[in-house]
Amino acid sequence: MRAAVMYGAGDVRVENRPAPRIVQSADAVVRVVASCVCGSDLWPYASMPAADAGRPMGHEFLGVVEEAGADVTGLRAGDLVVAPFTYSDNTCDYCVKGLHISCRNGGRYGFDGVDGGQGEAVRVPYADGTLVKLPVEADSALLPSLLALSDVMTTGHHGAVTAGVGRGDTVLVVGDGAVGLCAVLAAHRLGAERIVLAGRHTARTDLGRDFGATDVVAERGEVGIARIRELTGGVDKVIEAVGTRPALDTALGAVLDGGTISRLGVPQYEVGPIGPGLFMRNINLTGGASPARAYIEHLLPDVLDGTITPGRVFDQTFTLDRAPDAYRAMADRQVLKALIRP
Amino acid sequence: MRAAVMYGAGDVRVENRPAPRIVQSADAVVRVVASCVCGSDLWPYASMPAADAGRPMGHEFLGVVEEAGADVTGLRAGDLVVAPFTYSDNTCDYCVKGLHISCRNGGRYGFDGVDGGQGEAVRVPYADGTLVKLPVEADSALLPSLLALSDVMTTGHHGAVTAGVGRGDTVLVVGDGAVGLCAVLAAHRLGAERIVLAGRHTARTDLGRDFGATDVVAERGEVGIARIRELTGGVDKVIEAVGTRPALDTALGAVLDGGTISRLGVPQYEVGPIGPGLFMRNINLTGGASPARAYIEHLLPDVLDGTITPGRVFDQTFTLDRAPDAYRAMADRQVLKALIRP
Repeated sequence: MRAAVMYGAGDVRVENRPAPRIVQSADAVVRVVASCVCGSDLWPYASMPAADAGRPMGHEFLGVVEEAGADVTGLRAGDLVVAPFTYSDNTCDYCVKGLHISCRNGGRYGFDGVDGGQGEAVRVPYADGTLVKLPVEADSALLPSLLALSDVMTTGHHGAVTAGVGRGDTVLVVGDGAVGLCAVLAAHRLGAERIVLAGRHTARTDLGRDFGATDVVAERGEVGIARIRELTGGVDKVIEAVGTRPALDTALGAVLDGGTISRLGVPQYEVGPIGPGLFMRNINLTGGASPARAYIEHLLPDVLDGTITPGRVFDQTFTLDRAPDAYRAMADRQVLKALIRP
Repeated sequence: MRAAVMYGAGDVRVENRPAPRIVQSADAVVRVVASCVCGSDLWPYASMPAADAGRPMGHEFLGVVEEAGADVTGLRAGDLVVAPFTYSDNTCDYCVKGLHISCRNGGRYGFDGVDGGQGEAVRVPYADGTLVKLPVEADSALLPSLLALSDVMTTGHHGAVTAGVGRGDTVLVVGDGAVGLCAVLAAHRLGAERIVLAGRHTARTDLGRDFGATDVVAERGEVGIARIRELTGGVDKVIEAVGTRPALDTALGAVLDGGTISRLGVPQYEVGPIGPGLFMRNINLTGGASPARAYIEHLLPDVLDGTITPGRVFDQTFTLDRAPDAYRAMADRQVLKALIRP
């Protein structure tokens, strides 16, 4: 089968790989209908050391079950399913708590002999625990929004939930990438009254306004913080959807004492400012990698009835063979989020 | 009046200072009946650069109102009061939220022309907002436990509250200082079923057991973490009551993914490990400097009826003139927490 493989920074190739087959009896093989490029894929695209053995890419996909292992009871060939961005057994202590990202038996696509999502097919371990069956046809117009449940929408929702967003709240979302925009959508869905979006790409912040942002702050750094404070007087709840130190610094500058910062962007730093300053201000640091699997069924009805349309973050579709172009376009910020059709 | 003043590391002197008097109409002058040395006083005692102008010490005290300013309505001369470890107006937006530590008009004893608590008398700004009247006589046997409301007990309670401790929980408390022991007491009071205390001073951990600790782990570092994990399988809620990086590392090693670490010890580091590791594990970092004022009335009934006896952390009483000995004894770990009587 054809699949996208990264060999180093800026070096994504589409090549032939062995067709996946059932290895464990809990596996399923899914033929991919749609996948996409994640903002987090851009970090290795910017910095991965060149390697002889490439890394199969992609962790967001939906598709049709082609074959199910002997122990798979909830799925059968022909089912349309969406995959959360990590696989999980859905039965261990962490999964039972709703923390599927920490599943004792879970893992990541593209590692440990498991295919990436940016390819024609994927062997999915713990298929019953991982995949969620979708009650639509494979040509449904809802597919982009359903694909968003794989990561960006469930991640944005994780930010809003862990930040404690509720009715009437004022919320700051730092970052106008696809996750930031989905965080706006999630905060709006949970009843936030005022949502300030910090971002400077007009096409993206315009979509943010459609998703519920009431204010957009394009300025960065101290000027941006001053503007947010001028607009709001400071905010109790911040969703940081970038992962850089400047984004965290914006969050820290805008948050009120006693407030909460939920981080959704994978930190591009190893240490951060959690010394006496943060301590004296009683700032809470929460968030992290989303347990996407825990949220899919919860958000699914709102996608099916059109209440939320997170699929709008996909602003360009590429064929699988053009995956390298998709990476380049996202890295150059020509494209917000690239959908890939095998 | 006589008061303790620090001039540098290891250099605490008791000297004559001007007797406090009303400066603002919201002030009260309190004649100190009992004060104490805080674990946080030991940080400057270990490291403060020598200075010509000394710093009046002490931020925990109770005493009798000697004089009240013209605008003070809730207190009068003769009232026995306890002071939370910072003063606050109790009316600003932060105070209304219960975050008195961030009061817009608040401040610290020993700074900005306000006396320290380790002296014969203190001018207390915003007396109505700061001081809590105590319904006992100045010679009550309850005084040590009432004094503990000034800081250690309300700080321990802040840790238990922000860690989300509730009935049936398993909680780890890192540190057997007075705050750690009060955190044990607070967690027990809130219904924690299993409380693991990490500390290696037997006299202190014995008191911790009296306060509700079910297990004591004396080992440190990786061995200590392994022991805590062996006992508990990992914990969801950790109260870190030391403030050093090794204490934070113990907390991080023992906490389960998705768990919460509440920090009560003032961090002795500027940056900490909040990179991808913490992020992928969804660990929540909370706590901070306690809004003591917010908790005093809440905990007061339990002190008055003997349900909690946090005053047991005071294991030696010094006269004010012996304040330097009190510091030395605490720094040398001969004394857990020194009570000072002017």
